Amino acid sequence: MRKAIATVSLSGTLAEKLDAVAAAGFDGVEIFDNDLVASAMLPEEVRARAADLGLSIDLYQPFRDFEAVPADLLERNLRRARHKFAVMERLGVTRLLVCSNVSATAVDDDALAAGQLRLLAEAAAEHGITIAYEALAWGRHVNEYLHAWRIVRMADHDNLGTCLDSFHILSRGSDPGGIEAIPGDKIFFLQLADAPLMAMDVLQWSRHHRCFPGQGGFDLAGLLAHVLRTGYSGPLSLEVFNDVFRQADTARTAVDAMRSLIALEEETGARLPGAAALAVPPPPVQPTGFAFAELAMPVSAAPPPAGAVPGRNALEPLLVALGFAHTGTHTGKPVQLWEQGEARILLNTGESADVPAVAAIGLESPDPAGSVKRAQSLLSPVLPRRRAPGEAPLDAVAAPDGTALFFCRTAQLDHPSWTGDFAPVRAGRPGDEITHIDHVALTQPWHHFDEAALFYRGVLGLTPQESLELPDPYGLLRSRAMTNAGGTVRIAINVGYVGGHPSAPDAPWQHVALASRDILATARRLREIGGLVLPVPANYYDDLQARHDLASERLHTLRELNLLYDRDAAGEFLHLYTVTAGRMFFEVVQRFGGYQGYGAQNAPIRLAVQHGPVPSAGRQ
Amino acid sequence: MRKAIATVSLSGTLAEKLDAVAAAGFDGVEIFDNDLVASAMLPEEVRARAADLGLSIDLYQPFRDFEAVPADLLERNLRRARHKFAVMERLGVTRLLVCSNVSATAVDDDALAAGQLRLLAEAAAEHGITIAYEALAWGRHVNEYLHAWRIVRMADHDNLGTCLDSFHILSRGSDPGGIEAIPGDKIFFLQLADAPLMAMDVLQWSRHHRCFPGQGGFDLAGLLAHVLRTGYSGPLSLEVFNDVFRQADTARTAVDAMRSLIALEEETGARLPGAAALAVPPPPVQPTGFAFAELAMPVSAAPPPAGAVPGRNALEPLLVALGFAHTGTHTGKPVQLWEQGEARILLNTGESADVPAVAAIGLESPDPAGSVKRAQSLLSPVLPRRRAPGEAPLDAVAAPDGTALFFCRTAQLDHPSWTGDFAPVRAGRPGDEITHIDHVALTQPWHHFDEAALFYRGVLGLTPQESLELPDPYGLLRSRAMTNAGGTVRIAINVGYVGGHPSAPDAPWQHVALASRDILATARRLREIGGLVLPVPANYYDDLQARHDLASERLHTLRELNLLYDRDAAGEFLHLYTVTAGRMFFEVVQRFGGYQGYGAQNAPIRLAVQHGPVPSAGRQ
Repeated sequence: MRKAIATVSLSGTLAEKLDAVAAAGFDGVEIFDNDLVASAMLPEEVRARAADLGLSIDLYQPFRDFEAVPADLLERNLRRARHKFAVMERLGVTRLLVCSNVSATAVDDDALAAGQLRLLAEAAAEHGITIAYEALAWGRHVNEYLHAWRIVRMADHDNLGTCLDSFHILSRGSDPGGIEAIPGDKIFFLQLADAPLMAMDVLQWSRHHRCFPGQGGFDLAGLLAHVLRTGYSGPLSLEVFNDVFRQADTARTAVDAMRSLIALEEETGARLPGAAALAVPPPPVQPTGFAFAELAMPVSAAPPPAGAVPGRNALEPLLVALGFAHTGTHTGKPVQLWEQGEARILLNTGESADVPAVAAIGLESPDPAGSVKRAQSLLSPVLPRRRAPGEAPLDAVAAPDGTALFFCRTAQLDHPSWTGDFAPVRAGRPGDEITHIDHVALTQPWHHFDEAALFYRGVLGLTPQESLELPDPYGLLRSRAMTNAGGTVRIAINVGYVGGHPSAPDAPWQHVALASRDILATARRLREIGGLVLPVPANYYDDLQARHDLASERLHTLRELNLLYDRDAAGEFLHLYTVTAGRMFFEVVQRFGGYQGYGAQNAPIRLAVQHGPVPSAGRQ
Repeated sequence: MRKAIATVSLSGTLAEKLDAVAAAGFDGVEIFDNDLVASAMLPEEVRARAADLGLSIDLYQPFRDFEAVPADLLERNLRRARHKFAVMERLGVTRLLVCSNVSATAVDDDALAAGQLRLLAEAAAEHGITIAYEALAWGRHVNEYLHAWRIVRMADHDNLGTCLDSFHILSRGSDPGGIEAIPGDKIFFLQLADAPLMAMDVLQWSRHHRCFPGQGGFDLAGLLAHVLRTGYSGPLSLEVFNDVFRQADTARTAVDAMRSLIALEEETGARLPGAAALAVPPPPVQPTGFAFAELAMPVSAAPPPAGAVPGRNALEPLLVALGFAHTGTHTGKPVQLWEQGEARILLNTGESADVPAVAAIGLESPDPAGSVKRAQSLLSPVLPRRRAPGEAPLDAVAAPDGTALFFCRTAQLDHPSWTGDFAPVRAGRPGDEITHIDHVALTQPWHHFDEAALFYRGVLGLTPQESLELPDPYGLLRSRAMTNAGGTVRIAINVGYVGGHPSAPDAPWQHVALASRDILATARRLREIGGLVLPVPANYYDDLQARHDLASERLHTLRELNLLYDRDAAGEFLHLYTVTAGRMFFEVVQRFGGYQGYGAQNAPIRLAVQHGPVPSAGRQ
């Protein structure tokens, strides 16, 4: 279907918005009245620019507080409309959105409203303009979409139809099934917006918290299916008022917006099999596990002399202590492969990193080429990759935080394995406690949290879990895990506070969580080495004792090993954190029973310790 | 009265919080359970630290989901309480806050709740601990303060009283007058928080949007008066959950908090004349006008050669064009005085500014010494001022954005005038259109908006006007004017978006608005010079024509002169903006009739133009 977006959904000047909308592949735009009024571009210039960019102007909006008014006001309102018709002719747009009257002057009289809208439609017809009348959720007398439709039907004019807006319908809890009673050719426009489910004043909710389809809690595919069953063939158009998008990068938000519409078409298609109008992107290829985590490391972060406490930037001592062995060296790049069980860590000193950080994640894909096709169809940037002769093909896309995601088939006969690019290294044998990567936590810029959720859901087919707020000494952190069906791929996306506190770090830490089959053994070995485990406050164990009836011997063990504990109805969870190295740290976890969480309630403890004085080996 | 604050109200580690609370002059703290649990400081260490800082620990909180549960859960809950009693003994705190049960296991049975709370009080008594039971606004069965009080009365134990929290009472719209029915000695604690009036889920409202007294919309002085009439003699304690304060500077937020309590005591005292417990700070001395605006300017910003378009950093050409004359030079500093009517501008090249910016404001004060005393009593930093021999005394305090506010008596016989420090300069005569400074707009860091409103209200006695949100191409700007009774002092405080857009500037612009008695004449002169007035988009005038029935000749004049227009029920407003110079620009305004606004709806037009391509003289 044709895709459009209202200029109010994006940041920037009107010219910047048009450029970004075209670059993201939209077919058209709704021009927001305020954007035009504030623009130095004349309507004729906007028209020419849109035409040059291949964009149609599908709607001019909004025209407010028109209908159901006393006679003297009607004259003034018609005069006001004629001024806007003149602007629309200069713009070359033939459809005007009229939203239901919110002013105190409006009268509760459907016949009056219909009669005046008919007059407006007659005046519009002289200019070849049609009117799409919409019920605002907070309209004074008309605030239900079927009410607006009854008035349109009563007015009975070819140049008058209704406009449906998913927010105004779903925010009030109206049944979207009623849409099917409206003839498709009288639905003059369809505006789409999602929103998180919130209990708040609907006007504030609408003005600040709308988001793109798939980023909120509304069933937009269900609504769209109802609309399509009417025969509606106009554009799908996004109208989103969002405080964050208003501040974010224009071009990037436009791409995010387009991705949301592609995913919405796909989801709607699943409910309307055979609907020809709906685009069908290649299906998602859900990853089945982690192939590796690649950590960028400064060249200078050499291991310390034997016996010394490792520096803040050293990852090798941590890996050695955790039982990893250096098993391979890339034949063409300064990259080391470290292994233990199915957990693989790449240490890359070729990326000129200032401090250690997660640079890439390898995901096991049943069909790497399909993974890439899926990513491309959803506008994810496919990363160019220099491929030396003899190296395995390895395709990657960029996640919203810049982390590269590689699609791998490790040691499968049907596909060259990336491990073939590493020459074996004679090393000590790895330990056998760490079995695999349990999860990876990445940090997002604060204004790309919703984009990230949509990316992992749409591109990788992961399922978003609940969004959590974790108190940190310098603000609330938001965290949301995205998982595959079997729980073998878990990616936690964290977004930090905006900043403002002089002691706060620039960005939250990233981490790689490793699953141990015997976390007590792993913890004991780390304890013997000393200086590597984040110390847990004694107060935590006093509180744990208050909250849970743990045997005192068990509590003693946890305390001694700096292990944290959680449980839910399904099982138990033990975990520990290493000290930080640059932007990252490791976590070691063990899941018991069917525990599916991440010990989120222990995260504030970790954050408080991490923000405190740098732990020294002597503390433990 | 004694003043306390809950540690959860501030950012930082527990140690940082205690330091900041003591430094701001608080008498005590409530220790938030989560803050202690996450702290590396043992309870004994916290106790010692608080004692060293002269802080009492007035409350430990919260203890959740205790009462009205089935028998097996009661045992577990009592065990949990005994663990916390042990921690409290180590901390040396004797009062525990128990908030009403929110869990699904709670039973709707007041007698059961009272019986179990009595058991808790008995157990607490063994440790010398008392229990303050509070109704959470979202408690499962107990969510009204009088309901909690009925249960406390039914339980009838010396170690059990009630805790009142202004948010939980006022957010539900409960009548606080009922407080007077509670004996003062059974009110075991009083927690104070304000909040903006919002229609939203009360739990989310409480967790994210509480603020300090005077920063929101609740009548806290009224509530406190009711509490004091009961004979309550405990501390006034702030408990504020606020997403912004969690990220802001700890020490600064603590001072802001203390200021709010001092102002609250004063306001409450006005309703309870003679209440001995309430501190009485020296009264505010409301300023009566602007003495001057001082602009910091780079030394290099010399006037351009005659006829050339002025550089971006040049203020003199703007002042000359506006009709100002250079009338004085400071005898000891590189500061020039420019005058026209009662409008005075100081140009200071001694502050090593990178670009022109507002550095200080002079306010006419009926009693400069009283103004300073007032500011000091509300913890505003009084600025040290080097005073050369013979110079007039001039005292200043720092506003939250760092702007210095000077308290002046210009050319009054009862006080030395700051103008005496300027040697007269022979210059052309100033024009006679500009009569005075109408308003000054300052920009606040985004995390100090509420602090700024409290500062201007509390310290200067100004009245805050409505808070507005203005769309800017790169985010929403918040703006709030603070005015004196006669409207002769108007300070607009603006706060920008957080940032994130690559094209967005670091901070919103500041401006000085000058009142003209004949803005058409001023605008014509500026037009003749050329290149100095911000061009207004033609589309603006098309829209103005649609909105208002202005005579076409008048509209033509506005368009020709780049004048903006507004009107309200009381009168009309004409204004224009100059081009920006560094961080600032000038506005010229003329008010007709009783218009009291600032043309706020035209601000988005200005912002769009300012963010666009730099206007050149040829455009106009």
